[in-house]
Amino acid sequence: MNSIDQLVVLTASVCLLALVIALIKYFVIASKKVDHERAEEISRYIREGSMAFLKREYQVLSLVILVLAVVLYFFSEGPLKFVSISFILGAVFSCFAGYLGMKVATLANVRTALGAKHSLNRALKIAFSGGSVMGLGVVGLGLLGIIIVFESINYVFGNDLSTLEKITLPSINGFIFGSAIVALFARVGGGIYTKAADVGADLVGKVESGIPEDDPRNPAVIADNVGDNVGDTAGMGSDIFQSYVASIASIMILGLASHSVELVLFPLVVALTGIVITILAGFFIQTKENGNPQVALNVITLGASSFAVICLYFVVDGFISNPYFTLGGATFNKINLYYVLILGLVAGIAIGFITEYYTKMGGKPVKEIAEASQTGGATNVLSGLSLGMRSTVLPVIVICLLIASTYFLAGIYGIALASLGMLSTIGIQLAVDAYGPIADNAGGIAEMAELGAEVRERTDKLDAVGNTTAAVGKGFAIGSAALTSISLFSAFESSAGVYDISLSNPFVILGMFLGATLPFLFSSIVIAAVSKAAYKIIEEVRRQFKEIPGLMEGKANPDYKKCVDISTKASIREMMTPGLISLLLPVIIGFFFGKQMLGGFLVGVTLSGILLAIFMANTGGAWDNAKKYIEQGHFGGKGSPTHKAAVMGDTVGDPFKDTSGPSMNILVKLVVIVSLIMAPYL
Amino acid sequence: MNSIDQLVVLTASVCLLALVIALIKYFVIASKKVDHERAEEISRYIREGSMAFLKREYQVLSLVILVLAVVLYFFSEGPLKFVSISFILGAVFSCFAGYLGMKVATLANVRTALGAKHSLNRALKIAFSGGSVMGLGVVGLGLLGIIIVFESINYVFGNDLSTLEKITLPSINGFIFGSAIVALFARVGGGIYTKAADVGADLVGKVESGIPEDDPRNPAVIADNVGDNVGDTAGMGSDIFQSYVASIASIMILGLASHSVELVLFPLVVALTGIVITILAGFFIQTKENGNPQVALNVITLGASSFAVICLYFVVDGFISNPYFTLGGATFNKINLYYVLILGLVAGIAIGFITEYYTKMGGKPVKEIAEASQTGGATNVLSGLSLGMRSTVLPVIVICLLIASTYFLAGIYGIALASLGMLSTIGIQLAVDAYGPIADNAGGIAEMAELGAEVRERTDKLDAVGNTTAAVGKGFAIGSAALTSISLFSAFESSAGVYDISLSNPFVILGMFLGATLPFLFSSIVIAAVSKAAYKIIEEVRRQFKEIPGLMEGKANPDYKKCVDISTKASIREMMTPGLISLLLPVIIGFFFGKQMLGGFLVGVTLSGILLAIFMANTGGAWDNAKKYIEQGHFGGKGSPTHKAAVMGDTVGDPFKDTSGPSMNILVKLVVIVSLIMAPYL
Repeated sequence: MNSIDQLVVLTASVCLLALVIALIKYFVIASKKVDHERAEEISRYIREGSMAFLKREYQVLSLVILVLAVVLYFFSEGPLKFVSISFILGAVFSCFAGYLGMKVATLANVRTALGAKHSLNRALKIAFSGGSVMGLGVVGLGLLGIIIVFESINYVFGNDLSTLEKITLPSINGFIFGSAIVALFARVGGGIYTKAADVGADLVGKVESGIPEDDPRNPAVIADNVGDNVGDTAGMGSDIFQSYVASIASIMILGLASHSVELVLFPLVVALTGIVITILAGFFIQTKENGNPQVALNVITLGASSFAVICLYFVVDGFISNPYFTLGGATFNKINLYYVLILGLVAGIAIGFITEYYTKMGGKPVKEIAEASQTGGATNVLSGLSLGMRSTVLPVIVICLLIASTYFLAGIYGIALASLGMLSTIGIQLAVDAYGPIADNAGGIAEMAELGAEVRERTDKLDAVGNTTAAVGKGFAIGSAALTSISLFSAFESSAGVYDISLSNPFVILGMFLGATLPFLFSSIVIAAVSKAAYKIIEEVRRQFKEIPGLMEGKANPDYKKCVDISTKASIREMMTPGLISLLLPVIIGFFFGKQMLGGFLVGVTLSGILLAIFMANTGGAWDNAKKYIEQGHFGGKGSPTHKAAVMGDTVGDPFKDTSGPSMNILVKLVVIVSLIMAPYL
Repeated sequence: MNSIDQLVVLTASVCLLALVIALIKYFVIASKKVDHERAEEISRYIREGSMAFLKREYQVLSLVILVLAVVLYFFSEGPLKFVSISFILGAVFSCFAGYLGMKVATLANVRTALGAKHSLNRALKIAFSGGSVMGLGVVGLGLLGIIIVFESINYVFGNDLSTLEKITLPSINGFIFGSAIVALFARVGGGIYTKAADVGADLVGKVESGIPEDDPRNPAVIADNVGDNVGDTAGMGSDIFQSYVASIASIMILGLASHSVELVLFPLVVALTGIVITILAGFFIQTKENGNPQVALNVITLGASSFAVICLYFVVDGFISNPYFTLGGATFNKINLYYVLILGLVAGIAIGFITEYYTKMGGKPVKEIAEASQTGGATNVLSGLSLGMRSTVLPVIVICLLIASTYFLAGIYGIALASLGMLSTIGIQLAVDAYGPIADNAGGIAEMAELGAEVRERTDKLDAVGNTTAAVGKGFAIGSAALTSISLFSAFESSAGVYDISLSNPFVILGMFLGATLPFLFSSIVIAAVSKAAYKIIEEVRRQFKEIPGLMEGKANPDYKKCVDISTKASIREMMTPGLISLLLPVIIGFFFGKQMLGGFLVGVTLSGILLAIFMANTGGAWDNAKKYIEQGHFGGKGSPTHKAAVMGDTVGDPFKDTSGPSMNILVKLVVIVSLIMAPYL
């Protein structure tokens, strides 16, 4: 057994361990008895609705994937036909990651609500445990998938550098392509679902009829809670799965240029370290009854990051055997790899903090928006848009500094590696992210099942935390998307054999213009889709309020299923157009206008995609918290005209921050991956 | 006298003729007696306010220009010191163009209102005549300025190709730099002024106190009317002046590569032809009492364009002596230059029509926004933003097709020349544009001076037309900005001696990221500035309503001057930051990070600047017309909740379409020009 085989076995074992732990956690949660009939009933509605959506979504996706796999199969020659298989594998694994996360989330939500009857700590533990299943599942499946592709080819063709270059890496690209397709459709479909249901439920329920949030009389309330699961859990799971494997794959590809198998396999070791830390971290979550759950989550995430900083040093030192390595003609000290990873991690946290600064509840920018709401909706919107535009500056500067410094430390390989530095402890980050919608759902169930004020207070406490941490997670997602896209672009250049994509070539500029327009078009379609779907929900809710006798008095049950059904159908239908455009545009440009123009196109998409992603995420986040800030009693508090203006801004921000914004990160990578896969045929 | 001298004399004479005609028109307007005391009083307020603003603005600008001129003088060596002189000349001419346009607009407004007492035709003629002064002034001064710079250097150093390259063209760059600085500050300062006053007047007057638009009891009503002049007239005048000279200059620079003096001078001949057509067109404006002024304006603009299409053929054929010319190693047929000009014109009109499609009153997109307003402000805003994002696609495709085809026909020179094709009849276009605020002001004066319903109806008829034509003008501005920026970028590459700005260089990507962020930052600052200034106006208007007894009953006069003063101070102060950032950023990047990164930066600014320009202009325009559409009685009409939502969207759109949007076109050119001027020192 040589050292590569040892590494493969070790990695596969740790991945399997992570998955086993995830399954154990899953069964522990599932085995907790739900001893409250109404709560169980409501959670069953949510569970069934979520699963129905996922089933429909995956049916449609299967078709898309099947067609693409057939195309890939017939266009590839010889061993490259393997790409289509790894493509399917990537898609299936990504779907499974989303499925697992959502399945457990829909079990953990009601148990968190009931856990909150006992104590805050018990509720926190269940919710976080639910999130961990997703965190462990995503990283475990992601790394395992890459290992399976790697090892299968190794088994059939060997693992010399030539095989790595000619067969293994294209197949791994196929794997990330599959995952990216699923991620895009899941993010967009789930994002449309969740926001359409949210907007629909709020506009008729809260605004028109004046009943509280999560009121069981609202026919769209179940759809709203389903939305949290399909958008924020399943969608995010596939999204992060894709970021993770794309990051690893881009490093492997760029490592090839060093003609060193070590540099190719190095990202696997880094990922492995991260998974081990993630497994360990799960044992340390804890809070006191009067404690702040935020502190508990901070201890976990910061603790894990610090621990990673220490471990990675030994990983670099132990795994890379030569003190120096050569890349693109330059020689670097191996310790530079360590610095690159740390810089990536630090930059990710920095972007997270910047995001938090611009969007956190008590912060100056959010207060400004709240203040501007006093003169009405127009000034609220203008102030939010202005803030969002401004908020792009610092993250871009951080990304630029990171690119410059990591390029200095380890060339293009360094830029790619930095993204994995950011994502090294993503398992924990994801657990925290996935915890958010569970806590949110728990609150909804507590309200609908009338579990009492104390329970609701505890779930609110859990929920408030989720929002802040989600902002930090978004920072990681955007930062790593920028780096990965640039690294993959570099891989595209070498794969397509174009190193002279020059700005003097007008067709490159044309490509860039078209590319920069795609994120605008994409966002436009997605935002319009949310409005369209929301409009249908609004009509249905109004109809039920009017036609079902005794509904408003609480004497009759609304037809939850109908709203769930409308959301499902609308979001599945609406996700197709933007998905297919992003898929086909690079193909058309590449085959009809050539590699140079395609290169410009990719850079254009990345530029405007990243900027719009930051802009939309922060604008939406700030509007949301400005509303909450006012609800805390500032500037007139709940019910005041100021509050009304802020609610409006929040509604505008909903598709920004949860539908079009997060889709951008996937879009910028998807177009590059598509181009990378077809590069040899251009 | 050689042929160049003949051309210079001819061009100078035609420019002087245009200016003389403009002055005659000016004096004809000024000499018309204003036989209505109240109207005269109000128009005096507006005139004084406008001039007070312009004086303050030009004072501040003088300082900026003086400092820059000194810097240019001390950094240049030998004959290049001439650049600082031409820089001042460009700035002074641009200021004068703005001044002239505004001076005549503030005289024509009241005379248009009084002319409307007689007939629609008389009012139209006065308003259009006022606009023509600006149109003729801008093109006359622009071309004359270039000729002065050209001929002065010719006189001192001769006009061989080497002098052209080493002294003349850098000096012409200095001229366009001066004009661009003035344009940026005038657009931003004027844009902030006009929207702050508009929003301030509307929010307190119309929304809070329920008094009609242009009511003399509103203390901000004069500031609002002043705003139309300083933003839409003076700001636009300097803006178009800059587009025009930048377009001509970029062609001259790129013509050098052909080593043919003819190609260098060719844009002068094209411009000359345009001016002659503009002069002639002024004699043909006419409408019937029941006619639609739009038809009259269409006849003029389309007639002029068609006439240009015929004339330019003979110009190309007559001026270019060789049947073939060589550029960048390729040989082209001279008739291609004609095709390029026509393609430019056609593309400009196409972008105009697309703009109109997305923003016109009865169009599908605008109806959709109006419909979405029924479910409130949030859906109105979302629908507008979605539309604006989508509306970037077609103009970008037109620009791309134009770039590709003109590059095919005449290389980079063709791309530059196409922008002049777009602008060939800009004198008339500008007359129509400048006519807009005059008609708008006339309506305001008619209302305030109580000239009666019939007069108001006629001025409303005139005003309604202005909006549509303005949309077409915006299309021209955006299209030519994109082309000119790309041509100047190409000039930058050759001037800086970098032909290898490659996307493989991470620092180029970094530059692009930073560049793409600038338009976001710029827009953010400008939008925030409008809100800030508007807030001050709102407070002042509220104060006056409260503290001046008898104001609401019409028994006391408000303190108009105070609002004018607040707007003036606020806008002058707020224009400094964005202006200085745009000026300094390319300098910093160029000197600290080198030419490659600067090159990336310039392309980044162009990409995101053009996209944001289209996005913001169309979103704002569509919101505006959706509101007007509802006011026509659709979806509940004036005063309904739907209308309220639409008014809100319109307010959000105000700074979009009139402040940050139009500034983008200047910004993308300014950064390239700054870079071009410092290129030899990098």
